[in-house]
Amino acid sequence: MATVRLWTDDEAENEPAVKGVFDDLRRVRRSDFVNNFCRALANDATNLKRTSESLRTIMGGDGALDPLTRELIYIAVSAANGCSYCIHSHAAAAKQRGMTEAQYMHLLAIVGTASETNALVTAMQVPVDSEFLVGE
Amino acid sequence: MATVRLWTDDEAENEPAVKGVFDDLRRVRRSDFVNNFCRALANDATNLKRTSESLRTIMGGDGALDPLTRELIYIAVSAANGCSYCIHSHAAAAKQRGMTEAQYMHLLAIVGTASETNALVTAMQVPVDSEFLVGE
Amino acid sequence: MATVRLWTDDEAENEPAVKGVFDDLRRVRRSDFVNNFCRALANDATNLKRTSESLRTIMGGDGALDPLTRELIYIAVSAANGCSYCIHSHAAAAKQRGMTEAQYMHLLAIVGTASETNALVTAMQVPVDSEFLVGE
Amino acid sequence: MATVRLWTDDEAENEPAVKGVFDDLRRVRRSDFVNNFCRALANDATNLKRTSESLRTIMGGDGALDPLTRELIYIAVSAANGCSYCIHSHAAAAKQRGMTEAQYMHLLAIVGTASETNALVTAMQVPVDSEFLVGE
Amino acid sequence: MATVRLWTDDEAENEPAVKGVFDDLRRVRRSDFVNNFCRALANDATNLKRTSESLRTIMGGDGALDPLTRELIYIAVSAANGCSYCIHSHAAAAKQRGMTEAQYMHLLAIVGTASETNALVTAMQVPVDSEFLVGE
Amino acid sequence: MATVRLWTDDEAENEPAVKGVFDDLRRVRRSDFVNNFCRALANDATNLKRTSESLRTIMGGDGALDPLTRELIYIAVSAANGCSYCIHSHAAAAKQRGMTEAQYMHLLAIVGTASETNALVTAMQVPVDSEFLVGE
Repeated sequence: MATVRLWTDDEAENEPAVKGVFDDLRRVRRSDFVNNFCRALANDATNLKRTSESLRTIMGGDGALDPLTRELIYIAVSAANGCSYCIHSHAAAAKQRGMTEAQYMHLLAIVGTASETNALVTAMQVPVDSEFLVGE
Repeated sequence: MATVRLWTDDEAENEPAVKGVFDDLRRVRRSDFVNNFCRALANDATNLKRTSESLRTIMGGDGALDPLTRELIYIAVSAANGCSYCIHSHAAAAKQRGMTEAQYMHLLAIVGTASETNALVTAMQVPVDSEFLVGE
Repeated sequence: MATVRLWTDDEAENEPAVKGVFDDLRRVRRSDFVNNFCRALANDATNLKRTSESLRTIMGGDGALDPLTRELIYIAVSAANGCSYCIHSHAAAAKQRGMTEAQYMHLLAIVGTASETNALVTAMQVPVDSEFLVGE
Repeated sequence: MATVRLWTDDEAENEPAVKGVFDDLRRVRRSDFVNNFCRALANDATNLKRTSESLRTIMGGDGALDPLTRELIYIAVSAANGCSYCIHSHAAAAKQRGMTEAQYMHLLAIVGTASETNALVTAMQVPVDSEFLVGE
Repeated sequence: MATVRLWTDDEAENEPAVKGVFDDLRRVRRSDFVNNFCRALANDATNLKRTSESLRTIMGGDGALDPLTRELIYIAVSAANGCSYCIHSHAAAAKQRGMTEAQYMHLLAIVGTASETNALVTAMQVPVDSEFLVGE
Repeated sequence: MATVRLWTDDEAENEPAVKGVFDDLRRVRRSDFVNNFCRALANDATNLKRTSESLRTIMGGDGALDPLTRELIYIAVSAANGCSYCIHSHAAAAKQRGMTEAQYMHLLAIVGTASETNALVTAMQVPVDSEFLVGE
């Protein structure tokens, strides 16, 4: 149950700034589907526009990392931040970009192991080795 | 300043269970360096052995993801969990495995963007779209 | 599904320490409604009393910040901590205290942006500028 | 100790995209000071530009919340996320925008109390009252 | 709704590595019940085996802390990490190991108070007293 | 470097509300030492009094859990929340209450393992087994 209204397509029709972003999303993704995140953000057209442009630049544009790797990183961050929605939506996106079952399970194993060592290091307050700072 | 003692090599010499893990790490990594995380875990030889074996299996063994991708995911989780030590040590590991400056900056941009959308989604309590649950 | 029992009014009737807090809440808020948080805390009358008094002092009493600003801060913390219940209950409280739709959307944009820069700064381990320490 | 290089002004001189943002920041803030966050982000000119524009829109532009309230919210999120750098930099910004000592201490009391109730609610898994969902 | 398949007993029958762990769990716990966590991990037999062995060593084997205290700590960590599943499953395990209602409520009060002081200390960036470092 | 002033004893002398709490702490703990957390909270005498009374009730008063177990839980929460100060101060308090080296290392192993399973469960979004809800 969201704390804000999820905009329907009819509502978006009457608000050009929102409609513009929805139309754009549909054109770029070649799909009629607009997700709940965008329908929630539609309550603030400026933020909707800014956020969807950021996502397109970083996740969809040119870049040093390939599209699948980007999604794997996104899932890892979302899991560590405990965001159920983003875990589901980016798992779906990663599958669309070719993530295999084995790759997903390997990703999960890394997320678990990293969280364990993160916790152990924090609990023991281990100081950073000077070797890791070489060249900085 | 750690909350536990960081074992020196001399101390490890007198404790076979610890020495065994340290020797093993040196052999596998072909380097004399043993990091502070292992020196802190040495206070509990069982946990040191278990943790180093987990790390070797998941980060170093066969797997569906290539070694560099594994490190990128590790950095992402460590950043989201706010573990300074792991951010430094896995940034170093990723560089050793070929991470370029451009890849690192792209990774950071994804970590930032994912954290923003995670926070927005959580703050608005956006419900998961049924489309993301297809096939489950 | 809570991990503790949510006390009904009938149960509270038979436990003076709980009934005292429930009566007090109803009197101060001029409403018969007692929320699930208080009904859960009722399993520990001492903690219920202590917590409701803290909340009244900090959120309801005199103070340097006006009542609406207090609720905005509470929502921001609850979103960052990922507490669904508190996000809902304090969004409701903020609306009661006059929060407009535009103020809520601005709050959300700040929560998102702050979370992004928090993540970027942590991932890059940026050292605090000495300028920010001036005067301390 | 950052994991990326902090750009000096001399280095920025030779990279027009970075110099443009630095010049802009100095002009808008009417100060020669460029903080370490921007100097770190300078390693990725696209992200530097995107992030500084987001911050200016949300924290500096028109909006439903006054400038001081925005900073209080930013501090609250940064504290909940445990970002030392952002706690320091936005405490400084809030003071510049008129935050009094008493307001700061009230903010801190709310951050503490909200974190306590967030933890209690999460630990007890308290279900959201239907009353908080009215009107949605 | 999980992002991975939850294995049924029939599916486990056809995969010896998974069946081995399930059989083992049933034997050790003297119960036919296999929880959803193990059924989800079954998608990666190596990780299932590794994780169940870690849990048995640390939560079930010999050790310096008694079985109930271990579960109390597990609940505390799970609450702080916001893991709903683990809060429920380890509250159930703690009750099996003799946790009284009063002990559970005391645990919750500590989790709440610790989270409040954690937040206050972080928000004020209080430096560690040298007295706490004595002897290290 | 704190974001608030740490009160000296001389400053506390001139503020009766603060001096009262400091005197009380010294009397109860039979030690002249007042930690930095209290010296930072002294900027808000109401919050200082409220917080120190909460801590005394929950950590020092009668209760269903013994004093050492309380400290172990406090450390676990502080580690999960990443609060360096509280990790150090409560590790010191636990040692004073008799925590052995072996107990501390066992605690750390549980913190690490719980964090790993928390992360795995969250990443896979495992639904709570109905068995864990029995009797509620």
